[in-house]
Amino acid sequence: MADYRELWTSLNMDLEKHDQLCEVLPELYGGVYLTQENRPEGMNYFNFVVSEVHGLRIAELDKHRKEGGKVLGTFCVFVPDEVILAANAISVGLCGGSQFWVPDGEKVLPRNMCPLIKAAVGAKISGTCPYFQSCDMLVGETTCDGKKKAWEILNEYVPVHVMDLPQMKRTKDYAMWMDEIKIFIEKVEELTGNKITVDNLKKAIEVCNAKRRALKRLYNFRKITPSPISGLDALLISQISFYDDPVRFTEKVNELCDELEERAKEMKAEGKKRIMITGTPMALPNWKLHHIIENLPAEVVVEETCTGTRYFENEVDAEGETIEALIKNMADRYLNINCACFTPNDGRVEDVLRYAEEYKVDGVIYYNLSFCHTYSVEYKKVEEALKKAGIPIMNIETDYSTEDSGQIKTRVEAFLEMI
Amino acid sequence: MADYRELWTSLNMDLEKHDQLCEVLPELYGGVYLTQENRPEGMNYFNFVVSEVHGLRIAELDKHRKEGGKVLGTFCVFVPDEVILAANAISVGLCGGSQFWVPDGEKVLPRNMCPLIKAAVGAKISGTCPYFQSCDMLVGETTCDGKKKAWEILNEYVPVHVMDLPQMKRTKDYAMWMDEIKIFIEKVEELTGNKITVDNLKKAIEVCNAKRRALKRLYNFRKITPSPISGLDALLISQISFYDDPVRFTEKVNELCDELEERAKEMKAEGKKRIMITGTPMALPNWKLHHIIENLPAEVVVEETCTGTRYFENEVDAEGETIEALIKNMADRYLNINCACFTPNDGRVEDVLRYAEEYKVDGVIYYNLSFCHTYSVEYKKVEEALKKAGIPIMNIETDYSTEDSGQIKTRVEAFLEMI
Repeated sequence: MADYRELWTSLNMDLEKHDQLCEVLPELYGGVYLTQENRPEGMNYFNFVVSEVHGLRIAELDKHRKEGGKVLGTFCVFVPDEVILAANAISVGLCGGSQFWVPDGEKVLPRNMCPLIKAAVGAKISGTCPYFQSCDMLVGETTCDGKKKAWEILNEYVPVHVMDLPQMKRTKDYAMWMDEIKIFIEKVEELTGNKITVDNLKKAIEVCNAKRRALKRLYNFRKITPSPISGLDALLISQISFYDDPVRFTEKVNELCDELEERAKEMKAEGKKRIMITGTPMALPNWKLHHIIENLPAEVVVEETCTGTRYFENEVDAEGETIEALIKNMADRYLNINCACFTPNDGRVEDVLRYAEEYKVDGVIYYNLSFCHTYSVEYKKVEEALKKAGIPIMNIETDYSTEDSGQIKTRVEAFLEMI
Repeated sequence: MADYRELWTSLNMDLEKHDQLCEVLPELYGGVYLTQENRPEGMNYFNFVVSEVHGLRIAELDKHRKEGGKVLGTFCVFVPDEVILAANAISVGLCGGSQFWVPDGEKVLPRNMCPLIKAAVGAKISGTCPYFQSCDMLVGETTCDGKKKAWEILNEYVPVHVMDLPQMKRTKDYAMWMDEIKIFIEKVEELTGNKITVDNLKKAIEVCNAKRRALKRLYNFRKITPSPISGLDALLISQISFYDDPVRFTEKVNELCDELEERAKEMKAEGKKRIMITGTPMALPNWKLHHIIENLPAEVVVEETCTGTRYFENEVDAEGETIEALIKNMADRYLNINCACFTPNDGRVEDVLRYAEEYKVDGVIYYNLSFCHTYSVEYKKVEEALKKAGIPIMNIETDYSTEDSGQIKTRVEAFLEMI
């Protein structure tokens, strides 16, 4: 990575502490990713993105801001990127995936809270995440108690706009969500000074839909046995989708898919067990579970998570000649995401069953970040449905530490033998 | 207690397991309550209510149901009792306050979840709570992740109607809450077969307001030094308010208050430290913290909790000549409750500061049921405000087990010495 110290200094970062982080990541990445054999050539771009994770993209954000553009940080697949893009702003996902940030998060948050939230807050207050430091505004939502209350703390450091997501999916909730999108549009217009128009919103919808299509195309290759791409690599691409330039990212994913098309013809079955992960998101650089699974005779072929299918399934209808119509289209698409924050959330159970068939999975691993109540309570419903369908399932609740890795490996091994 | 076995059998209860519960409660109550010296005469009614907790009131509910009336179970101070009363139905609070029910709750819920929810669910699925067994419908709300998802499990046992509480307090949220109350009215009308009218709703508002006034009158006596009533006794009255007949309850509280008026003149200061509890609710029979505090040279003089001021502060305006107007009045009153489920929730900090002055408290104990995220994150804001105001505060996170009682006692002792 080139020298970005001047840029980081201008972002008020804690350089000394950040150096510690920069030392850890390449080693982690090398151990988890570069040890994989026979990776697609197209992964080189994503290797490069990771190697420049706090450099090149940050320089792009910096350039954008110096030219008068704004950067918005988000934490959830419910925040409509289309609105941000339409206002010529850049959206970056800020969920924290590293144990490195957890101790700082615990300075202001209870310890018995999900590591994703603690890491995100810790990343901000420690001044070691250049993405956080590049944001002109954060966009929160009311998808869980932990995040909802964490915005109040983050708001002491950087302005946070909170979107109130309805907790159900009745007709009136779609109307309510449209209202929230309207308020968000006003807020973004105010921040950027750019008006959202039918024209720029349609263009933004197209950009986001193209990205969704590319990810769906990628995931479709994973339906093949054996998958021409590892679960680890697919997960990395999903994680990068949250902060890379969307047009370039889409292009690179499609290039990779072109390669996978050829590759799929040459792959030979190795009898690996095909695993679905369902549950809570895995933010960069959280590769813990995939790494454990794929070092055993198994491959992760689909993630029914926010860093998986929930992010790209269903497009926003670009048809409509008024802002109101396009807002309705966005509300319809986003409120159809089946997150455990809704009650009831039967759609998720249907998704899991459908993916199990489509991706021909041998077993499902329910991944639950510690203390995430919505997903942990929902385990029971998913378990019942899968058992009824004769699909094996196991439940893993874990955080970002590596202390339980050995234990998880033993449990996954036993699960693989059983299925 | 008279023999209610026939009644309990008719409610499909697990009599054997229920016998175990019936053995525990009198001993617990005796040890905590009847050992208090110099209690007001008026507490005899509440002693009686506890001694008949699974008997007389259940017989009243049974009689009501046999006469065609309905019983609705609730779990939260946001559910408007006025609507239930207006439809000639009875409302009973079902939050669980006993460790007895926790292991059953943990059969279907994650262990790292708040004991109040686990106890409530455990009470239902174990068939040992005659209040649950008497309910024709439960009314849930979306005030926290744990409860929101627990309704889905309870719904497998008894119909649950869920009210979606907005997570903020903007103008549009008041309108949304009015909508939720309208939907609730329709649901209650459907269940009971009784139409809600301006007339019966006004009468119900008056009944609920009278109850609120009686509780406020009771709490006002606690502003006197020393308080003519113990914190334990006041807590018990608050707990009983959730399921006793509201008219009789109000009468009995007012009788007690008449006695307290005389008593206040005779009380002699004993130099006890005056303590405010703020935080999560204490459902019957959760007397753990009050018992610890009041066995030390201290008295609890106010609870800024749902089993305290949040339940009775502010009345519903009974003025209005249409259902719509009365619904607006209810929405205004209920949405003004300062629960940590809102973001932001600055009103709660203001309440705590105001009560600290009004009740002349020497220190504040922040009471947090384990794994309640909204209140545990909000501790930081409350702590900052109290420290700024020079009011000592300590944080206690605990559940329903007695394992940490010794440790809590030591910590409270140290806190009392310090303030």
